[in-house]
Amino acid sequence: MDIKMRTLTTNPYEDGFYMPAEFSEHRATLILWPERRDVWRDGARPVQRVIKELASIIAKFEKVIVGVTRDEFLNARSMLPENVSVFEISYDDAWIRDTAPAFVTDGKELRGVDWEFNAWGGLNGGSYFPWMLDNIVPQKVLEWLHADRYKASITLEGGAIQVDGEGTLIAIKDCILNPNRNPNMNQTEMEQMLYNYLGIKKIIWLEKGLYLEENNGHVDNMCSFIRPGEVFLAWTDNVNDPQYEISHNAYEILSKSVDAKGRSIKVRKLKLPEPLFITGEEADGIELSEYALPRIKGDRLPASYLNFYFVNGGVIVPGFNCAEDEVALTQFKEVFTGRTVIQLNVREILLGGGGLHCMTMQIPMCNSIKGIL
Amino acid sequence: MDIKMRTLTTNPYEDGFYMPAEFSEHRATLILWPERRDVWRDGARPVQRVIKELASIIAKFEKVIVGVTRDEFLNARSMLPENVSVFEISYDDAWIRDTAPAFVTDGKELRGVDWEFNAWGGLNGGSYFPWMLDNIVPQKVLEWLHADRYKASITLEGGAIQVDGEGTLIAIKDCILNPNRNPNMNQTEMEQMLYNYLGIKKIIWLEKGLYLEENNGHVDNMCSFIRPGEVFLAWTDNVNDPQYEISHNAYEILSKSVDAKGRSIKVRKLKLPEPLFITGEEADGIELSEYALPRIKGDRLPASYLNFYFVNGGVIVPGFNCAEDEVALTQFKEVFTGRTVIQLNVREILLGGGGLHCMTMQIPMCNSIKGIL
Repeated sequence: MDIKMRTLTTNPYEDGFYMPAEFSEHRATLILWPERRDVWRDGARPVQRVIKELASIIAKFEKVIVGVTRDEFLNARSMLPENVSVFEISYDDAWIRDTAPAFVTDGKELRGVDWEFNAWGGLNGGSYFPWMLDNIVPQKVLEWLHADRYKASITLEGGAIQVDGEGTLIAIKDCILNPNRNPNMNQTEMEQMLYNYLGIKKIIWLEKGLYLEENNGHVDNMCSFIRPGEVFLAWTDNVNDPQYEISHNAYEILSKSVDAKGRSIKVRKLKLPEPLFITGEEADGIELSEYALPRIKGDRLPASYLNFYFVNGGVIVPGFNCAEDEVALTQFKEVFTGRTVIQLNVREILLGGGGLHCMTMQIPMCNSIKGIL
Repeated sequence: MDIKMRTLTTNPYEDGFYMPAEFSEHRATLILWPERRDVWRDGARPVQRVIKELASIIAKFEKVIVGVTRDEFLNARSMLPENVSVFEISYDDAWIRDTAPAFVTDGKELRGVDWEFNAWGGLNGGSYFPWMLDNIVPQKVLEWLHADRYKASITLEGGAIQVDGEGTLIAIKDCILNPNRNPNMNQTEMEQMLYNYLGIKKIIWLEKGLYLEENNGHVDNMCSFIRPGEVFLAWTDNVNDPQYEISHNAYEILSKSVDAKGRSIKVRKLKLPEPLFITGEEADGIELSEYALPRIKGDRLPASYLNFYFVNGGVIVPGFNCAEDEVALTQFKEVFTGRTVIQLNVREILLGGGGLHCMTMQIPMCNSIKGIL
């Protein structure tokens, strides 16, 4: 039989493969079902309702597959609509953006890059322990798709990279070059790996990520491509907010940068919500365990409108039930005139440390996806 | 999106669907990976080697998907060849023949019938407890295939039915009508269910199954279709074997029967191996637990050449490392001149109570299988 899922010994660059932009057409969206009680409050029921809503919205635009553990299979199946598929898979937590393979294509065939994953820093600043099930999520997903696999021996997460699909990558030094990910690699070595495994030609490095965000700076909370040559940048005009300097520094870098095609980057400032904090009731709903970071009343939450998600013909924009929601929504509608823009309140996801972009992963459209058979 | 996996409220018969014969073309074969230590000796390693061999052989003829639990994923992936896909799924044991849905088609679309499963008799004679994960295997498999589901409220196993794909079913009363399966149904009611859910028109009832077989008589150890109008029947000429009367009684019934098309049934006698017994060493390798039947030195094993499996262009025939293997193989080669006949030693599967047919399930060829995407 000719259908094989192989682990290749070459790399995408030399094979003519590259990572398409998220705004390109999708074949489907992957989501994982949150369940752990030491991350998600009230036994994960409130966040499950949000994920149900998120999956239902995306399913209006494209196929959705929700991965779920053995224990939650029937619960997820009963909560999700019929047009969402539910596949059993085990994982340590539901951050598929960071645990999925990076999908690459040569325009004909789909393959996946399987990075190392250590829960955003391992024992040196990571968010939970263990992460061994997360680390084999890419293999399982690639089996579903009968897609060949590249194994990249670097620690990296999908939320830490933004590509324009035309050769340009934006990433944040504080995260990518953090010793808690790849202690034995310098910047030049890391750049070579990114060139090879993402098929890119140019990296724009920002210095720091969103203030207090626990991933050491995921670019998907800070700066996201709208289209080639154009980005949203997380913004604040409040000089007393530590975010102020971070955003202004990034603006300066981006304004002076050109992309892989030699274009200047058009930067659109996207105002962050005013600082949001975890309430006592919310913190109280999270079970204490030895295996996950505690969440404490009054902790500032890493809320960002940058953490949006493209779907075919649409954009899903986070909302936080605060005054800035409307401003952000208006701005998205202005920028994405050709797409349906839908806002979803993601506070329950935010309580776990991320947003709706962190909870989704696109499978690029590709004619030769062989699917399960 | 139009891809839905629905649970239908109609039945296959009224929708124009029927169950194709196993000898019809397959889209793929499903297998589950054995692992439980209280059924499979020596931590299931010996039987895993046989399943690896079985999957490898079948993969030469058609696509194979092996389902495996979270704990065994990497082990199975590393043991199986690249052209076999490995999907995570949980189950109580690996008897996919009995836990899979019965696939039905109208010639265009694939759907599945999800029976109740109670481990061959539940607390009244079943082989293990619990069986709740087995019971939702059909839902998970149908999700993989994006195939709609019929939920049939009767307890039935795939090994208990043999169809010719042209309207005829052969089954064994001792099993199908056993009070430990469907205590509140009489024969007429059960026949109506089988007509409705398998799209058949005629049932040929045998009285008893293979001697000492613990499923109360699975027809796939006793009598199997070779092609429409023609069967193999488990046979012995040893008048002192309790099997003698069982086989002769079945022969008499079959010889007098006509199938759904009005054809007489041509019966080919297939000689069983001489009685085989579990050795002390084998019994000693099985861990004692409260959850599975004990296996004791000297127990007679339900060995049968009837438990063979069709693949596209081939037939996989069980072998038991005994004198009759060669006789059976010759007989298969005579009957299946158009197929490659391969014999595989399945003693390790037999120690768990079944054979290679019990460990496989065909997905019929069907143009509209939507696969994972």
